[in-house]
Formats: sequence, structure tokens, C-alpha cells
Amino acid sequence: MTASFIPPRRTLMGPGPSDVPQRILDAMARPTIGHLDPAFVELMEQIKSMLRMAFRTENALTFPVSAPGSAGMEMCFVNLVEPGDKVIVCRNGVFGGRMLENVKRTGGVPVVVDDAWGAAVDPNKVREAFQSNPDAKVLAFVHAETSTGAQSDAATLAKITQDHGALTIMDCVTSLGGTPVLLDAWGIDAAYSGSQKCLSCTPGLSPVSFSERAIAKIQSRKTPVQSWFLDLNLVLGYWQSAGKRTYHHTAPVNPMYGLHESLVMLEEEGLENAWARHRAMHEKLKAGLEALGLRYVVDEAARLPQLNSIHVPEGVDEAAIRTKLLIEFNLEIGAGLGDMAGKIWRIGLMGYSAKQENVDYCLKALKACLP
Amino acid sequence: MTASFIPPRRTLMGPGPSDVPQRILDAMARPTIGHLDPAFVELMEQIKSMLRMAFRTENALTFPVSAPGSAGMEMCFVNLVEPGDKVIVCRNGVFGGRMLENVKRTGGVPVVVDDAWGAAVDPNKVREAFQSNPDAKVLAFVHAETSTGAQSDAATLAKITQDHGALTIMDCVTSLGGTPVLLDAWGIDAAYSGSQKCLSCTPGLSPVSFSERAIAKIQSRKTPVQSWFLDLNLVLGYWQSAGKRTYHHTAPVNPMYGLHESLVMLEEEGLENAWARHRAMHEKLKAGLEALGLRYVVDEAARLPQLNSIHVPEGVDEAAIRTKLLIEFNLEIGAGLGDMAGKIWRIGLMGYSAKQENVDYCLKALKACLP
Repeated sequence: MTASFIPPRRTLMGPGPSDVPQRILDAMARPTIGHLDPAFVELMEQIKSMLRMAFRTENALTFPVSAPGSAGMEMCFVNLVEPGDKVIVCRNGVFGGRMLENVKRTGGVPVVVDDAWGAAVDPNKVREAFQSNPDAKVLAFVHAETSTGAQSDAATLAKITQDHGALTIMDCVTSLGGTPVLLDAWGIDAAYSGSQKCLSCTPGLSPVSFSERAIAKIQSRKTPVQSWFLDLNLVLGYWQSAGKRTYHHTAPVNPMYGLHESLVMLEEEGLENAWARHRAMHEKLKAGLEALGLRYVVDEAARLPQLNSIHVPEGVDEAAIRTKLLIEFNLEIGAGLGDMAGKIWRIGLMGYSAKQENVDYCLKALKACLP
Repeated sequence: MTASFIPPRRTLMGPGPSDVPQRILDAMARPTIGHLDPAFVELMEQIKSMLRMAFRTENALTFPVSAPGSAGMEMCFVNLVEPGDKVIVCRNGVFGGRMLENVKRTGGVPVVVDDAWGAAVDPNKVREAFQSNPDAKVLAFVHAETSTGAQSDAATLAKITQDHGALTIMDCVTSLGGTPVLLDAWGIDAAYSGSQKCLSCTPGLSPVSFSERAIAKIQSRKTPVQSWFLDLNLVLGYWQSAGKRTYHHTAPVNPMYGLHESLVMLEEEGLENAWARHRAMHEKLKAGLEALGLRYVVDEAARLPQLNSIHVPEGVDEAAIRTKLLIEFNLEIGAGLGDMAGKIWRIGLMGYSAKQENVDYCLKALKACLP
């Protein structure tokens, strides 16, 4: 017989999930109702409205995909890219590379703009890519690279894209709720995020938003969307205004309760206050890390407050330190991914984890574990 | 300001989700840990092992997809069907039709075997389809049609398929945990289910299982899998044995706690006892429904105990009755889908909902609401 699973109580300061407040956990445990229940329809409408607040957008088509951020990413690409469409993909970390994979699998023709891992996307390279490829239909970039902690200049990249009459797909998995994400002001056409980063909800849902221009493109496609589950033409019928909904799939009811509660908490705090809190906690952590002699991977100008990537000191066994932090302090921090595996640590200050108590605890634990 | 969402307390006797026991809800609310935490790896191993018990299989590749049943369905098709592959699709309800959509979107060549809605799949028609299409590579059918309540003879359909050297994809969304699903004894190559039916977990996860033959087919594909999120070549690295896992996506941690608890409860009850309970409750509900003069849609031989489809009596406004049941009794039953919209009700007796208390309550409420 298998016993019930009682998880250890960790402090989550990796690249996500972040600590989930008890209020959100309690919401997850409320009684399940049907996904077509009028009360659930009301819940969905409130979630859509609060996500618009978080994304700073008026986009009607703003909702949570019933799956993790990877599926939100795929929804953007399979709907907006048709076979043969040229897509400029900015790659300055793991998640830009994953965008490239998505372009290939939709039959798109990728044009890759590479930047060093840890650097922001260089707008000049993007300008040049558009000049060499005036037929490019989409620019895809990661606003906040979770693999490195670098933030790119979304406003400038979106402006260049508009000047060339193309659409923008933006990954804001790690930025939404933590640093400014201004879809309408920037003119982003498709964006996807995750529930488990600066929204501090449990993992499994992917907030997305699409502009009118993106919808026009989807509705004028010549080929069907290759995914049934992620086809916006079908999902639209499910997430559109109450009263007209048609059955598409069974939504994850209880995780939606959790996302709703996390957005209520964000409303209560105020979006700008949440950004300021992430910034303030970052400054405190940074001072402490520097006092320990640790160096940041990303230049100050492009540094994400909510994801602090630091070099593993020379001669230190990075995995052993992470294990020690986990076992002795119940503290999770992140390892490097891809080319940065073994070379960096990623310390998250996301959502509910971005608080003084966590900053102090992390610094204390690191001090105790570093040689 | 938006208020926290407090759902009404319903009795769920539609086609799913079913009532979720408090034990499972409590499990969902336990502290979130990282998806790469050693404790989470252990949880995953236990879930895989218990799912093998539920599916009656030794398949190593048995795990929950991090998304609803529709995504589990799509995972089966995008991995096992290559462009140009001929696929025999049995269609005797909505979900057979959805399989057909999946075949088309993967570039497969569908051969449709139609049966009346409410009837089981006719094995003779499948035999004929294979004789006319000896190059067919896959048979796809729904074991338990959620749209009608009809059960098909999976053992016979799988045998025919093996005789023709093809692979079988089976939808067992509504049967797993409620009526016998015997993957290995039947020789099924790919199966997908849902967490929110007879497992009585919250919606959002899709248990799947793949045979060695299915894996061989996937590994010998000539074209890449069109979905990045659902590519088993990548997912395998994530769900394979502990210690060798690579990051793919962030799993829905807390919903996994819930699924784990639901499987622990299934182990405690015993799979065969769970089947017997669904059968016994069905007999009681059936007696009561017949006493009310209500007639079943599906012939007794093909009737699913956990999904009771009944004709709406002549002259009765079916939506008004469902609304009355919901508002006055907090009782959810299901409407008809597709061709059966407006004509039938679907009363679920799935998982935790399959109990005497629910049977009595449903009959009492129906009696009060029927004219």
C-alpha cells in the first residue's frame, strides 16, 4: 500500500515555482464544481478581467491556457505561424531556443538572431534581420530569460516589428507580475506567461493574451491549426463571453480557483507595488550576495530583479551546495541550464518569495554552506 | 476589488468532473515543492506505479500528462501517426469525432467506421475496414463514449488490430477506475484517460500509457512530432526513472498531489471493488430511474454503469429541469452533446459520486423536478 504524500516544507527561491501563500493553497482545496457551471463561468470572467489588469491590456482574448507555460508558448506559435511563414527568433538563452523549436515544428522558416547568454537581445541585430528579411511575418523574443536572468527591451523590439508590419510573440513567463509588462503600450500581439512565477500560484496554467491583429491573422489562416487542443478558433468558443460558451475541454477547475486568488492578491497589493517590492527585495539580496563575494552573470542594466543569476565561485561543487541548501535548510535555488549548467546558480525572488524573510534566510543559508 | 471566489457546494453527477473527496482536496492544498525536488521525483514514481495498477499494465511509459484529457488524446495521435499513415477511426459519438479531427491534423489518412450514437462500435465493420485497408497502421476507438454512455468491446477490437499488425489507440477517459480497463490483457498500445472521472480527482491531468510497440513506432518516426509540448521523445526524459530526469516543462505540482491521493484511495479500496461499486450503484440508480418512467439511451449490453444516458421525456424542457436541479438542489447532471443536445440527460456515477447517498439524492431531486 502506498501512503499519502506529505511534501517537505521548502522555501522556494529557484526559477519557479515560487512559494505559494496559504490563501492560494486554501483556495485550491475548495469544493470542485463543473466546468460548465454558471458559477465557474463567473470565475472565468473574473480571471480574464484580472489578467488584463496584470498584462496591462484591453485585449478581449486574455485567458489562462489549461496547461503549463510550454503549452502557452506552443499556442502562440501554432496559431500565429503558418507553414512557410518567416519568423525572426531571438535566442539569448534556453527559452529563445525553445521558441526556435516551436517555429520549426509549425513549418515556419526561422531567422535566428543570436545574442550571448546573459545578455539582452540586441535591437540593432533585430533591425538588421528585418532589413535582410522584409518578408518576415513574426518576431519572437523572450522578455525575461528564465535561464539567465536577462531582461530585453520589449518596447523597442515591438516598435521595430510594427515598423515592418509584423506581429510580435513575447515570452513573459518570468516577468508577469514581477516587472512591468505593458502589452498595449508596447504593442505586443501575443504573450504567454506562467502561473508559478511572480503570480505565486501553483504551476500548471499559462496566462496568454492576443491582440486584435493577432486574431485577424488567425482568422485569415489558409491552413488549419495543427493542434486541436491549442486551436484558438476552438478555444475561443470556450473562453468567450459568458452565455455563449461551447464545450471544448474540461478546464482544471481547482487550479483556476488558485489562479483567481493569486490575482485577487495582486489586485489588493496593486501591480505597481508588486513591481516595487520585487525591485526592493532584489536590492537587498544583491547587497548580501555581493558581501559574500558572489558576482552577477547579467550586467546591471539588463538584470531581472526577480531572477538573480550568479557565478558559482571557482573550485566550488555547485550541485553539492544546492543539495546542502535543500537538505539542511529546505531551501531550493536553481541550477544553470544548457550551456550554463554547472556554472551558475539562479536565485528567484518571485511573487510571495520576494520578501525580507526569504532574502535573510537565503543569505544566511548561503553563508553557512559556502566554503 | 474582486472578492475571493467561494464556489457553491454541488453534488456532481454529470459526465465529469465527479465529486472530489475532501482527502483529495486537502492533498491539493499541501505546500508546493519544486518540480525537480527529489521528493517530487519520488511522488512521480509512486504515481506511475499506481497508474500501472489502475490501467492493469506493466508499461514502463505510464504517466499523467500535465494537461486535460484532450491533450492526452492529442499526445497519442501526434506521436503515433505520421503524415500519410492510414488510421481507422471508429466514430459512435462526440469523442470518436474528436479522434478523427486529431488524425486529420497530424496529416494521417482517416478511414471512418461509423456506428449509431448510443451503440457500441461494431467489430465486424472494423474487420471489414482492415480488409479493405490492409495498409492501415492504427485503429482508434473510444472504450467508453462519454457523449452517449456506450461501452465498446475493447478486447475484440484490439485483437482484430493485432491480427492486422496495426497499433491501437484507446480513449478510456470515462472507464478508467470505473469499469475494467485491461491494457495488457487486451493488447492496447496507447491509452489516455482523465483525472476527473472515475478517479474522482480534480480535472486537469490525463493519465496515459504506451506499449513497447508504440515506443518502437515513435522511435522509428521519419518526421518530427509536430508538438513540442507533447513530444514523447522529450517528455520521456522528464518522466523516465528517477535520477536521470531532464527538465522539460514545469509539472502541475499540487494537482499531482491530488492525483496521488486519488490513486492511494483506489489502492485502498481495491480496483475490482471499485468496479463492483460502480456496477452496484448503477443497478440502484437504474431501478429508480425506471420507476420514474425514464428510459435508457443505450442497450443494456453496451451500457456503461458510470454514465447513465436517459431520454428526456416527450414535451419536457430539458434545460429548465437541469437548471432547477442545479439551483434548487445544487445537483449537476449533464446535457446531451452534438446530435443528442436537447434530447438526453447524462447522469454520472463516477468515482466518489458512485455512492448510495448520491443515488438517493439524485432520484429524489429528479422526482421533485420532473413534471
